[in-house]
Amino acid sequence: MRLPELDDGRPVYRQIADHVRGQIRAGALAGGERLPTIRALADRIGVNRDTVAQAYESLITEGLLTAVVGSGTFVRAAAVPDASTPSLRLSPHVDWLLAHERSRPRFGSGENLVPLHSLIPDPDLYPIDDFRRAFDLVVAEDGAELFSYGGPEGHPRLRAALARRFRDAGMGVGPDEIVLCHGASQGISLAVRLFAGPDEYIAVEEPTYANVLSALYGLGLRAAAVPMDDDGPEIDALTRTLARPDVRAFYTIPAFHNPRGTTMSDARRHEVIAAARAAGKPIIEDAFEMDLHHDGKVVRPLFALDDAVVHLFSFSKSLFPGVRVGSITARGPALEGLLALKRATDLSDSMPIQAALAKMLDAGDYDRHLARLRPTLRARREALLGALAREMPAGTTWTKPEGGYQVWVELGFPVDTRDLLADATRAGVLFAPGSQFRPDGGPSRAMRLTVAQTGVEQIERGVAALAKVIREHRDASPAAGSTGAVHV
Amino acid sequence: MRLPELDDGRPVYRQIADHVRGQIRAGALAGGERLPTIRALADRIGVNRDTVAQAYESLITEGLLTAVVGSGTFVRAAAVPDASTPSLRLSPHVDWLLAHERSRPRFGSGENLVPLHSLIPDPDLYPIDDFRRAFDLVVAEDGAELFSYGGPEGHPRLRAALARRFRDAGMGVGPDEIVLCHGASQGISLAVRLFAGPDEYIAVEEPTYANVLSALYGLGLRAAAVPMDDDGPEIDALTRTLARPDVRAFYTIPAFHNPRGTTMSDARRHEVIAAARAAGKPIIEDAFEMDLHHDGKVVRPLFALDDAVVHLFSFSKSLFPGVRVGSITARGPALEGLLALKRATDLSDSMPIQAALAKMLDAGDYDRHLARLRPTLRARREALLGALAREMPAGTTWTKPEGGYQVWVELGFPVDTRDLLADATRAGVLFAPGSQFRPDGGPSRAMRLTVAQTGVEQIERGVAALAKVIREHRDASPAAGSTGAVHV
Repeated sequence: MRLPELDDGRPVYRQIADHVRGQIRAGALAGGERLPTIRALADRIGVNRDTVAQAYESLITEGLLTAVVGSGTFVRAAAVPDASTPSLRLSPHVDWLLAHERSRPRFGSGENLVPLHSLIPDPDLYPIDDFRRAFDLVVAEDGAELFSYGGPEGHPRLRAALARRFRDAGMGVGPDEIVLCHGASQGISLAVRLFAGPDEYIAVEEPTYANVLSALYGLGLRAAAVPMDDDGPEIDALTRTLARPDVRAFYTIPAFHNPRGTTMSDARRHEVIAAARAAGKPIIEDAFEMDLHHDGKVVRPLFALDDAVVHLFSFSKSLFPGVRVGSITARGPALEGLLALKRATDLSDSMPIQAALAKMLDAGDYDRHLARLRPTLRARREALLGALAREMPAGTTWTKPEGGYQVWVELGFPVDTRDLLADATRAGVLFAPGSQFRPDGGPSRAMRLTVAQTGVEQIERGVAALAKVIREHRDASPAAGSTGAVHV
Repeated sequence: MRLPELDDGRPVYRQIADHVRGQIRAGALAGGERLPTIRALADRIGVNRDTVAQAYESLITEGLLTAVVGSGTFVRAAAVPDASTPSLRLSPHVDWLLAHERSRPRFGSGENLVPLHSLIPDPDLYPIDDFRRAFDLVVAEDGAELFSYGGPEGHPRLRAALARRFRDAGMGVGPDEIVLCHGASQGISLAVRLFAGPDEYIAVEEPTYANVLSALYGLGLRAAAVPMDDDGPEIDALTRTLARPDVRAFYTIPAFHNPRGTTMSDARRHEVIAAARAAGKPIIEDAFEMDLHHDGKVVRPLFALDDAVVHLFSFSKSLFPGVRVGSITARGPALEGLLALKRATDLSDSMPIQAALAKMLDAGDYDRHLARLRPTLRARREALLGALAREMPAGTTWTKPEGGYQVWVELGFPVDTRDLLADATRAGVLFAPGSQFRPDGGPSRAMRLTVAQTGVEQIERGVAALAKVIREHRDASPAAGSTGAVHV
């Protein structure tokens, strides 16, 4: 292996890792080839052995290297581009997306792990008998025509049913202002493409939904972070960010924020809209949990306050994800652009699925499901908040959501919560480290906990195990008890 | 209305149309406002009245103006951006896509129109009872888990079933090299993003599938046209085009080409692959009708000959479109990039749908459906080719496909077939004008006819009506009988 030249001022382990990765990608290191031992490489380039070990470990995490106990560290065959396919050079956007994806945590799995990290709703709660009945009905009623293409806007009956629900929430919209799409995730991909092109920015809250970052990076777009407090995005920072000509829109989750769980105050809503209007920039409102207020109250969307909002909705968290149905509501040129983008992207969605969902909404199945879901969510939220109060060390703070599945916990001592993940997994509990919700992927002393897949007993067991891991790390921390800056 | 300044060397009617469009978009012309009469505007700017009329007509086609007989020409209210949403400035890519979409023909519809323009398979042929049975079975077997998210790669049973079929066609692939997606149309959108970023080019055949152009334009990509003959793309042109550094890949439809219906010869396949290899550029192979050989023969995909191919498949034409399931097959870094792009775009597809399709494939339902479909397709093809031979004027030529639904007809006199569309509609028949398959949208003396939605009797009636319209236009053409260049 050619030796790396260490010269660019970044952390040395990263320079070594980048060099090895480059050699693999260029085909200079073959699949199965053994790397120099940590000791040999450290001696030859004159760095600490821990530094080389850290570089190798990060490449093992990326899937490029594999360590065989007693034998050494090897290049994984799957990591090496096939010599017969030299021409498949990927677009730089895709390389950027891959680097981002590789930096995400890989969670363990197992029967006894408490999945406090997951925002996938519990399959035990899915009303699939209702769906199957509705599906059979619409296929019987509408026949083969239903299995042809639909328009890019989606099935008219589901748009009409959603328009009625949205009007009840204060959005004065008709069915023709709603475009159905493939989950709110496709909604995000389409909405950001409406306003921004490569190398332009979308302002996002920090923290924000991790997958919006992937959607942006894969399109060559960038994220400009706007810090939050419990009332919503900080207005001075938002105003400064939206004033930048290369920032084209603001993506926000005003109700039951992901990952924070908080809901934007009424006063902040008006300030956010005023800031966006002043900058002449649109708002993309992700209302993915709008139907999940724990007491069934209606949370008015931002869309109800301003026309320059593109509103995203999804059935994934309130019903089940597997139908892959969400919606985008927009007006004027944005609506026209969305229809063209949706058509250009995948022509049409599945009409039988959308017709079946419309049948469920019209029959009241969806509202009955929400009514059954709410007490479960309330009980789980109380269990989580109670367990946090009982178990967490002093100095820990957390949000108290009125809806949705997620709670944001900030630890009271300097730590990167990524560093707790391995110990927590061993202790039987999974959480989502705060870093994955940061646009720059940087360290965070926060974590997101959810009650999407966990019953009350699991929640209590999981939080107890997690609190123990947190206390152990706090006690081992050099700055134990301090509340200073996060260490990197 | 402010008068246009005519100064940029483009056709004058276009300059006038662009000026009026700009005034509408900028809000300087209000919805409902009357435009100057053709005579008044022509006099004031010193151009021919026909030129102004042409400008107004093109804006009426775009939906920006409306003509009221006896009253004048007015700005359509829907064309004017709502004054309360000044901030929704769209990305230039979306504006470009919208301009492209507006230039597409708008087909009439009606009970008695023969839809020779449509590539949507006839719902009468969809085996929906098989699908409904398969759907009920997999929901009963797999339960609620099936309604959660799947991986971005799609349901393992459908990938395994497709891998077996693809291996039978000579592609040596495993299930893990297949990524399921939302129709071949989403496959196109993802595959081009793998290799090209904004302002870069994808080489395409001319003519090519109209929607690939929309997919490119909506992403800010461009199309570089490679002319075709009956054996496939012309190799000299392909070699020159792929040599350009800004051309990143070649999108091709080797079997049952859309719109030409032809299949690439074996010799041309090897030349195409050699040209792509020499340029170091990947091939994106759209095999959307690969299962539709009229005699059931297997057409080996290009993928079977070279690793640097990304292969797209779809159930939309061989089964039904409404399930929205297609696949992308790729290797190495392209596979890794596809998985990341698919995940970033919409997380996952609908697992119940994919599991039901897998059940149909495993049970033999799909092969039985293909066996039933083939004689129907053969009979319709024979009816279409027979009617063309009987009805079309001398000098007309057409392709003789071995599979799929589409036939390409070239007229033997100078004409833009767009100019025949209105008369053909009045005569009771629809066709797809050749211009919509040209990357530059320019005039074409060709048209695509299909047998997707038309029985034998309809085909015969439609072709007879169309031939009559063609003869009338030929006889009225100033260059009647000539085979010179297409007039613009």
